[in-house]
Amino acid sequence: MRGAVIHAPGDVRVETLDDPKILQPTDAIIRTAVTCVCGSDLWPYRGLEPIGDPHPMGHEYVGVVEEVGSEVTSVKPGQFVVGSFATSDNTCANCRNGFQANCLHREFMSTCQAEYVRIPNAQGTLVATEQTPAEVFWPGLLAVSDVMGTGWWAADAAEVRPGSTAVVVGDGAVGLCGVIAAKERGAERIIAMSRHASRQALAREFGATDIVTERGEEGVTRIKDLTGGIGADSVLECVGTAEAMRQGLRSARPGGSVGFVGVPHDVAIEGQELFYSHVGLRGGPAPVRRYLPDLIDLVLSGRINPGKVFDLTLPLDQVAEGYRAMDERSAIKALLTP
Amino acid sequence: MRGAVIHAPGDVRVETLDDPKILQPTDAIIRTAVTCVCGSDLWPYRGLEPIGDPHPMGHEYVGVVEEVGSEVTSVKPGQFVVGSFATSDNTCANCRNGFQANCLHREFMSTCQAEYVRIPNAQGTLVATEQTPAEVFWPGLLAVSDVMGTGWWAADAAEVRPGSTAVVVGDGAVGLCGVIAAKERGAERIIAMSRHASRQALAREFGATDIVTERGEEGVTRIKDLTGGIGADSVLECVGTAEAMRQGLRSARPGGSVGFVGVPHDVAIEGQELFYSHVGLRGGPAPVRRYLPDLIDLVLSGRINPGKVFDLTLPLDQVAEGYRAMDERSAIKALLTP
Repeated sequence: MRGAVIHAPGDVRVETLDDPKILQPTDAIIRTAVTCVCGSDLWPYRGLEPIGDPHPMGHEYVGVVEEVGSEVTSVKPGQFVVGSFATSDNTCANCRNGFQANCLHREFMSTCQAEYVRIPNAQGTLVATEQTPAEVFWPGLLAVSDVMGTGWWAADAAEVRPGSTAVVVGDGAVGLCGVIAAKERGAERIIAMSRHASRQALAREFGATDIVTERGEEGVTRIKDLTGGIGADSVLECVGTAEAMRQGLRSARPGGSVGFVGVPHDVAIEGQELFYSHVGLRGGPAPVRRYLPDLIDLVLSGRINPGKVFDLTLPLDQVAEGYRAMDERSAIKALLTP
Repeated sequence: MRGAVIHAPGDVRVETLDDPKILQPTDAIIRTAVTCVCGSDLWPYRGLEPIGDPHPMGHEYVGVVEEVGSEVTSVKPGQFVVGSFATSDNTCANCRNGFQANCLHREFMSTCQAEYVRIPNAQGTLVATEQTPAEVFWPGLLAVSDVMGTGWWAADAAEVRPGSTAVVVGDGAVGLCGVIAAKERGAERIIAMSRHASRQALAREFGATDIVTERGEEGVTRIKDLTGGIGADSVLECVGTAEAMRQGLRSARPGGSVGFVGVPHDVAIEGQELFYSHVGLRGGPAPVRRYLPDLIDLVLSGRINPGKVFDLTLPLDQVAEGYRAMDERSAIKALLTP
């Protein structure tokens, strides 16, 4: 089969790889319908995370089941399925607590920019749609497997409630999906922090009521100006840098909440500042599996369309162009068709 | 009047001071019924916080109103009142959000180890009891003004729920009151971390079901052993040191919650570790005012008796002995009678 392999920073190629095989009785093999490039794929692409030996890439997928291991009974060949970037048995104590991205048998997906993918823990990871959805829904369902699930988790961790004010730090695909989530969860005011016209427009389309272009302390001051001087009830921190975390924490009102969903890079939180702010902080890899049934329904009913974050569609063979465009921020997110 | 003054580390004296006066129309003056020494008073006493010029001490109080400013209508002279160590107008945006310890007009109390005390923001800070309570209730009501309110907040911030498992880090008065709070909020299992026999006994009396004497990584391992390998739903971090915070965060299960209520000293939280733990973190000075009516009822109905944390009672003139005993941990908490 054909699949993407990263060799070095800036060097992602499509190569011929062995077809994946069932290795465990809990595995499934799917034929990829669509896959994509994630903002987090850019960390190694930019040389900010070690790459080591050349290896496959990608952790977002929707597809059709080709084959299942002997212990997989919840999905069967021919079904269209949506999964999560973090696999889970959905039965362990952490899964039962709703934190499937911390499943005791978790394996992170890492080979999805390819024609076929092996899914570990298939029984607890994959959710089949009732029938094969029309192609127009595939990008939205693909978004659900990671960025929309993560945006939802950001809003959940930030305790967005009906009538509240939410700030979204980060105008990447996750931040934009965070706007969708904040709106669906009933936020009355949604302030998107963005300085890119096309992303501002999509944020507004998704439900943002205000746009703040300033960053850092200036950005915090603008948020305070917009929130009666005290800050926002909820902040969705969708970046992962120290600056974004600082901006997020300082944008929340006393007793507000920050949900942080970008993998933190060189972030340390000062205990005494957090203490006197009364701000609650919760983050982590999104427990997408918890939200999958509801999010699939929201997409298939046409209520939300997170697939709009894909503003570039390429054949899998041109994956390198997808990375390049996202690295240069000329694309929000690149969809790949095998 | 007589009142305590700190001059230097280890040097607290009772001196004759000017009687406090109404300075603002929102002030009240109370005659202290009982007051006490707080664990946080030990930071300057031990030379771990700068002292500067000699100054009065104490932030816990119950007493009888002597005089009120012209804008104070909620309490009147002769009434027995309970307040909070952090004063609040109880009308600003932060107060309305339930975070009265972040009131926009907050003033921290700091002169309560004395015969008379001026209470700023009296209207929003003081809660009068229906009648003057019997003396037997005074220690419990005094505890409500700080350590019991703070223990309650720790359990609230740690999201203790009926049927859950809670760990309490710290066996000082706040930690012990945290045990009471966890029990009242319905925790099924309450693990107190303590290596002092008398404090263990009080923790058990207050509702602890298990005692862990180990600290640091060994303590975390013991907690994991007691919680099916994953950790506790809720952790009440009632110390404020880096070690206690680390122990607290690592004792919580994935997706669990840590409430931290000891003022952090040299505490930094590593972003990536917090991220992958899914643990929620919220702390700060307790919004005691939010809880006062309920906690006063719990004390006066005899349902809880946080006054038991006072295992040493001294006349105000012997305040120095109270500091010494708490510094040496021969007393949990010293009550002072003016």
